[in-house]
Amino acid sequence: MISQTAEYALRAAVCLAQYAELPLTTQQIASVTGVPAGYLSKVLQSLVKANLVMSQRGLKGGFVLGRRASSLTILEIVNAVDPIKRIVTCPLGIETHGVNLCPLHKRIDEAIAMVETSFAESTLAQLLASPSKITPLCALPSVANLEPRQTINKLKDEADGG
Amino acid sequence: MISQTAEYALRAAVCLAQYAELPLTTQQIASVTGVPAGYLSKVLQSLVKANLVMSQRGLKGGFVLGRRASSLTILEIVNAVDPIKRIVTCPLGIETHGVNLCPLHKRIDEAIAMVETSFAESTLAQLLASPSKITPLCALPSVANLEPRQTINKLKDEADGG
Repeated sequence: MISQTAEYALRAAVCLAQYAELPLTTQQIASVTGVPAGYLSKVLQSLVKANLVMSQRGLKGGFVLGRRASSLTILEIVNAVDPIKRIVTCPLGIETHGVNLCPLHKRIDEAIAMVETSFAESTLAQLLASPSKITPLCALPSVANLEPRQTINKLKDEADGG
Repeated sequence: MISQTAEYALRAAVCLAQYAELPLTTQQIASVTGVPAGYLSKVLQSLVKANLVMSQRGLKGGFVLGRRASSLTILEIVNAVDPIKRIVTCPLGIETHGVNLCPLHKRIDEAIAMVETSFAESTLAQLLASPSKITPLCALPSVANLEPRQTINKLKDEADGG
């Protein structure tokens, strides 16, 4: 339903949100998310291009989120790497249909619209502040001895406040 | 959101529902749906394998729906050619997660589930009986001088009754 690329981008974004104050290298993100480093590198480039992630140069450089996790939605992450495509004109190219979809394509587009709305309403902060006992990516090796829980608690406050 | 194969299968199924009483050849369905004949042939094979479409041999042979359009859902057609995949276990293979998804994968799975439910609730008969003035595939060349409207009116009665 969503592509592998989009799912990888979401893992990377969640990882960056968890370690919000620490720039992470591609290799570090790859180790936390389980995404192959080469693939991840391309995904991160797309996220940087869309201004959702920032690349900081230098010895302690790496990637950080471009905005607060409480204002970054699943939809933005997905659309930066593999945009959700609504059906806007008749896929059969029937001229008399044009932008007025037939019931078949209207029904399909309604389903796509539901997913779009659902993703637009979910922020990264909400995902990390979820009451679930299971934290995204939590059982994978942690990075640079930083305890992601500290960041998560901060995100919980942000999500509660906003 | 749904694959090209699934969209082609839906076009073919809608076409067969429109001409419910007339077996149609691959070439006829291709001409109505605008799907390339070679691609369509594979799609039809999958639908036959799933018992959603029947292949009738002989001089006046062709493809017909395997069930009434009022009992055939979009979900069944889609799942016969390119199944909608729910997320049932952690995509990262984290053992402690197992079938208990983290909030990220739970959120994605919820969106997939919404689409699944929406498609399960939509029958081919409903699509053709829709009050929309635009009929699926209607502006494409009609087949064998059969007037699809007659069939559609019958489907409207079926949908109203069921």
